[in-house]
Amino acid sequence: MIYAVIMAGGTGTRFWPRSRTTTPKQLLNIFDHETMIQKTVARVGGFAPSERVMIVTNALQQDGVQKQLPSLPLHNILIEPVGRNTAPCIGLAAIHILKNDPDGIMAVLAADHLIEPNDKFCETIRFAASVAADTGGLVTMGMIPSRPETGYGYIQFLENDKIHLNGREAYRVKTFAEKPNFATAQRFLDSGDFLWNSGMFIWKASVILELIEEFLPDLHDGLMEIRESIGTPAYDETLNRVYRSVKGISIDYGVMEKAKNVFVIKGDFTWNDVGSWEEVYQLSPKDGSGNVVTGNTIVLDSANSLVHSGNKMIATVGVQNLIIVDTGDAVLICDRSRAQDVKKIVEELQRKDLKELL
Amino acid sequence: MIYAVIMAGGTGTRFWPRSRTTTPKQLLNIFDHETMIQKTVARVGGFAPSERVMIVTNALQQDGVQKQLPSLPLHNILIEPVGRNTAPCIGLAAIHILKNDPDGIMAVLAADHLIEPNDKFCETIRFAASVAADTGGLVTMGMIPSRPETGYGYIQFLENDKIHLNGREAYRVKTFAEKPNFATAQRFLDSGDFLWNSGMFIWKASVILELIEEFLPDLHDGLMEIRESIGTPAYDETLNRVYRSVKGISIDYGVMEKAKNVFVIKGDFTWNDVGSWEEVYQLSPKDGSGNVVTGNTIVLDSANSLVHSGNKMIATVGVQNLIIVDTGDAVLICDRSRAQDVKKIVEELQRKDLKELL
Repeated sequence: MIYAVIMAGGTGTRFWPRSRTTTPKQLLNIFDHETMIQKTVARVGGFAPSERVMIVTNALQQDGVQKQLPSLPLHNILIEPVGRNTAPCIGLAAIHILKNDPDGIMAVLAADHLIEPNDKFCETIRFAASVAADTGGLVTMGMIPSRPETGYGYIQFLENDKIHLNGREAYRVKTFAEKPNFATAQRFLDSGDFLWNSGMFIWKASVILELIEEFLPDLHDGLMEIRESIGTPAYDETLNRVYRSVKGISIDYGVMEKAKNVFVIKGDFTWNDVGSWEEVYQLSPKDGSGNVVTGNTIVLDSANSLVHSGNKMIATVGVQNLIIVDTGDAVLICDRSRAQDVKKIVEELQRKDLKELL
Repeated sequence: MIYAVIMAGGTGTRFWPRSRTTTPKQLLNIFDHETMIQKTVARVGGFAPSERVMIVTNALQQDGVQKQLPSLPLHNILIEPVGRNTAPCIGLAAIHILKNDPDGIMAVLAADHLIEPNDKFCETIRFAASVAADTGGLVTMGMIPSRPETGYGYIQFLENDKIHLNGREAYRVKTFAEKPNFATAQRFLDSGDFLWNSGMFIWKASVILELIEEFLPDLHDGLMEIRESIGTPAYDETLNRVYRSVKGISIDYGVMEKAKNVFVIKGDFTWNDVGSWEEVYQLSPKDGSGNVVTGNTIVLDSANSLVHSGNKMIATVGVQNLIIVDTGDAVLICDRSRAQDVKKIVEELQRKDLKELL
């Protein structure tokens, strides 16, 4: 059976002032009435009903996650005491799945990506699950790159080393590449054998746990301790103690780059990690002046801008190419070309210790 | 004795979102801790102590005026029941002055102009008062134009028809000109015999009342009725009835353009009617990036902008030449070149009947 494991611990500083410590990107309704995590849970419905959807989040976001996903069983929301990157997070989900289902397959997904259409996505996840089950390997989801993007990691695959299954292919992974500079990204794009690393992984829970045992034995020891305590009063204390002692490390670096049986599938759906307000602008429908306008606004002679009002009136006159986002307590005015630098505002707020705005 | 008559009935739509029906420009602290009307009353202290300072305002602004000017005798604040332009306003002030001082000289001033330095200004007003007393004429204050401004009216003077008094000159006025188009303004500037009409006038209260009798007899009748009621229980009712019946007309059009004995004095102080946020930007001290920043802000890589925060955080990234003004309930983002069009926002709010933002 396939379990959706949705990692929802991100802080999303680039969506300030809407993203805050307790409401990062995944808990925001950036595009319509649904939040990113609600969209994600709805999407995985095509292969995992609520009882097989697991969210891994943190204490700050627990309330928000529970409120936004009332149909999810409470015990499916796993709370990390501290952030330790993706390897412990995935290990924690794996032991919870294995407690009930020794053959369980995990589809590890982000809570804040935009993917369409749902049916193509679910079909691909099911295919990936069958590859994971048949091979006992690790399956990654690659996206065919459309531009020399420097914001994503890349996966290089072996064109001639592939598995055929149900009329589709899974390619053996040659190497993982970190976020490249522009020249390298262009080379990757030209080469034809590099895909964007979407950060979505599919594997048997038992397999990833064995590989954690092999490559990250300390983490494995800790996870075994936690596993023993599941369903007992000692769980919280054990989880807390183990998490504070283990090293933070990504599953990519800690396991996947060292593992042998790694495959990549080409996703045939549109995927976007919605990394900035500029991407929200790009992905949203625009009016005749190229504006994306929501909420209480008067927009005069203004063009190619994103104007988002919480409840106060935003009035613009003669402006161009701006991102304007208002929340009750703060307003951002950012040139669209500088959307990546919104995180610098958050850094400045941290320096000034303005907690109420973080 | 010289009385300062400060006309404070303006609506100041171009300072939205700070200017509102109950707090127009004159009641705002645009430049520092003092509001424009507080600055004005402090300035006239050089020739008129509080008991000779009269404010003419309306019911909406009465509270604000009283609160901002606690040292002013309450009966010196005259309340117009409805706006009827400047002729009735000045007539009303004149009859109040004449009730106590038949020789009183009025210096009619705006509540929302920026003038410096005070001593030069007061000296000029005293000179104008002596011209008004000696000649029994109307004295206007002209400013030597520095640019072909289309936002002001102009006064043409007769270079060779002047009065010498105490070592200064007052020129006889040839004609008043409405706000010109650019080409005409340039011609005015080049001619050398046109001055900006500052809207400041000095004359004997008895003289302006006689001229109102001559040129606006209906208004004069009404004023005489009001005059009889001053200090009686009938005052409010009479004022209200007369004001509703009289025609709205400016003192310029109704009296000054028809009068014979009209003089102009060249003001040797700096004067600005602060007509827009752009002028506030121009008149304010700037930081190294050419920004004028007040309140709670984080301004990153932004230049040549006015950023004014009430108490919310305003964060900017990579923006240029903007006016950004936040009040609790609204935020304006306007290209500096479009500052005159802020009034269009107010018109739009009126159309939408959003009273709480007006």
